Amino acid sequence: MKVLVIGAAGMVGRKLVAALLAAGTVGGQAITGLALADVIAPEVPATTIPVTTQAADLSMPGVAGQLIAGRPDLIFHLAAIVSGEAEADFEKGYRINLDGTRYLLEAIRLAGQAAPYRPRLVFTSSIAVFGEPLPDVIGDTHEHTPLTSYGTQKAIGELLLADYSRRGFVDGVGIRLPTIAVRPGKPNKAASGFFSGIIREPLAGHEALLPVAETVRHWFASPRAAVGFLLHAAAMDTAALGNQRNLTMPGLAATVGEQIAALERVAGPKATALIRRQPDETIARIVAGWPQAFDASRARGLGFVGETSFDEIIRIHIEDELGGAIS
Amino acid sequence: MKVLVIGAAGMVGRKLVAALLAAGTVGGQAITGLALADVIAPEVPATTIPVTTQAADLSMPGVAGQLIAGRPDLIFHLAAIVSGEAEADFEKGYRINLDGTRYLLEAIRLAGQAAPYRPRLVFTSSIAVFGEPLPDVIGDTHEHTPLTSYGTQKAIGELLLADYSRRGFVDGVGIRLPTIAVRPGKPNKAASGFFSGIIREPLAGHEALLPVAETVRHWFASPRAAVGFLLHAAAMDTAALGNQRNLTMPGLAATVGEQIAALERVAGPKATALIRRQPDETIARIVAGWPQAFDASRARGLGFVGETSFDEIIRIHIEDELGGAIS
Repeated sequence: MKVLVIGAAGMVGRKLVAALLAAGTVGGQAITGLALADVIAPEVPATTIPVTTQAADLSMPGVAGQLIAGRPDLIFHLAAIVSGEAEADFEKGYRINLDGTRYLLEAIRLAGQAAPYRPRLVFTSSIAVFGEPLPDVIGDTHEHTPLTSYGTQKAIGELLLADYSRRGFVDGVGIRLPTIAVRPGKPNKAASGFFSGIIREPLAGHEALLPVAETVRHWFASPRAAVGFLLHAAAMDTAALGNQRNLTMPGLAATVGEQIAALERVAGPKATALIRRQPDETIARIVAGWPQAFDASRARGLGFVGETSFDEIIRIHIEDELGGAIS
Repeated sequence: MKVLVIGAAGMVGRKLVAALLAAGTVGGQAITGLALADVIAPEVPATTIPVTTQAADLSMPGVAGQLIAGRPDLIFHLAAIVSGEAEADFEKGYRINLDGTRYLLEAIRLAGQAAPYRPRLVFTSSIAVFGEPLPDVIGDTHEHTPLTSYGTQKAIGELLLADYSRRGFVDGVGIRLPTIAVRPGKPNKAASGFFSGIIREPLAGHEALLPVAETVRHWFASPRAAVGFLLHAAAMDTAALGNQRNLTMPGLAATVGEQIAALERVAGPKATALIRRQPDETIARIVAGWPQAFDASRARGLGFVGETSFDEIIRIHIEDELGGAIS
């Protein structure tokens, strides 16, 4: 099986590539070649599997056709510019997040006209497709009324994926990822950054700022769970999806207070003492418009598995990022 | 107020233009110019209002910019290729129904960069945005999982309209039209054709074929109601919409049996005697996947008004198409 990962240099992309190479198989089939693409050339991992890497901008006409010229059996499309950038640069957001996705789907369709071709395509969507009005728990059939251009572009990507799949051009699975926590790396300026920061920084012995009330509730999955969703989407029997190719992934609904309690259970009061309350009206207002919890029973029924406690999410961070121990 | 109608030569477009010229105003403002565009040049109606007509293919790059060069205050975007054609010709459907709409939105956005410009844009969407799973009555927050490329293209148009409106580039209102009945003109091959045919043909003294069971239930509005929706969307206070710019229009849920009973009440048994049952498995299967009824309370609360009985829909056809009397 030949595999292509578009967006391989991002946080989730790198973890996915590591998991693919560690397993050497997807759904029981050996990986015979792995092509990695991103706007900057991804690092070449150490492996016996033939790997190619390339710098490629999917939003440039013709690039999608080059990327799939080797007719990969399985394509992961993770490439996107993030919410804040898509909001700040309207044209760039549409070019990369909408045109890029459409170029990829069109390249696959046109390749199939030359000779039969219908690869599995796993597309990462986002809970940003949901907006007003938001019930406390969002059901699997709730409308998409995104409040960002990023969410709009992801919702359009889902519609295209479903239509191209219905027409038989591709075998698509779209997965709406929860907010990923604990996100490794440095603190960033994303409005959602504190959800990871209040765990990651204290575990590393650093102070973390908390800009919102402890009652704020949100929807989480670990990076490890995100990779698990991708691998399950790559191998699942898509006949069970019918024409509904897009799924809200199972996550864990937790309040900030529950996050902090979990941190105290896992790492003790010296960790939670490093969380400093510094209310930020702007961040509080942005976060107030975000989804709090989902039903996600459809994805659970199809075998997707998320975490069941925030303690588990913290332990996964310690195992996967901190070598299994905290200082 | 300058008004542009794109798709002015279609059935709804012609009726809209006639209504605009008869009123001479929209929302209390005098129409000072009316520009009509379609893929074939619309007829020039007799009026004292300055009217221009042009043949224009919105899906050609640059055409949208030409159409809005006069900076119309109000734009009706009705242009689309229909469901059957969008399914038969995949590329043409996406080019006209998706690219055309996007070109229009982009032309408006770019015009606003040169000098402030934020026209009202009324976009006709469709109940074809809804697909599996379908509840008996579809609520105002139900997801869009279209089962046709046409429905996909309309759902994408809705998302773009909402995002461009949220960003302040346009003042958009998207209206999901019910199935229009009684559609004037000749019988056609559309799977939905019989819904109008079993009324229109008997009223004209001709036989009509009924391919489905009388229990089949669907969602209707008259051509007159459709024009009313467009005019209300053109004049309404869009502040009440918030960021949810798209609305399911109020219609009337009726079974085929209820349609026939209404025809008998309005035109007697000699009309209904002209309906000949000729079951068609293919049409029955297509229609079985269609929406049956909607809540539409949001649009009703915002002042959109549809019919309340199928008798009324038949009487409107007799008034508007048959000169007020049946033979």
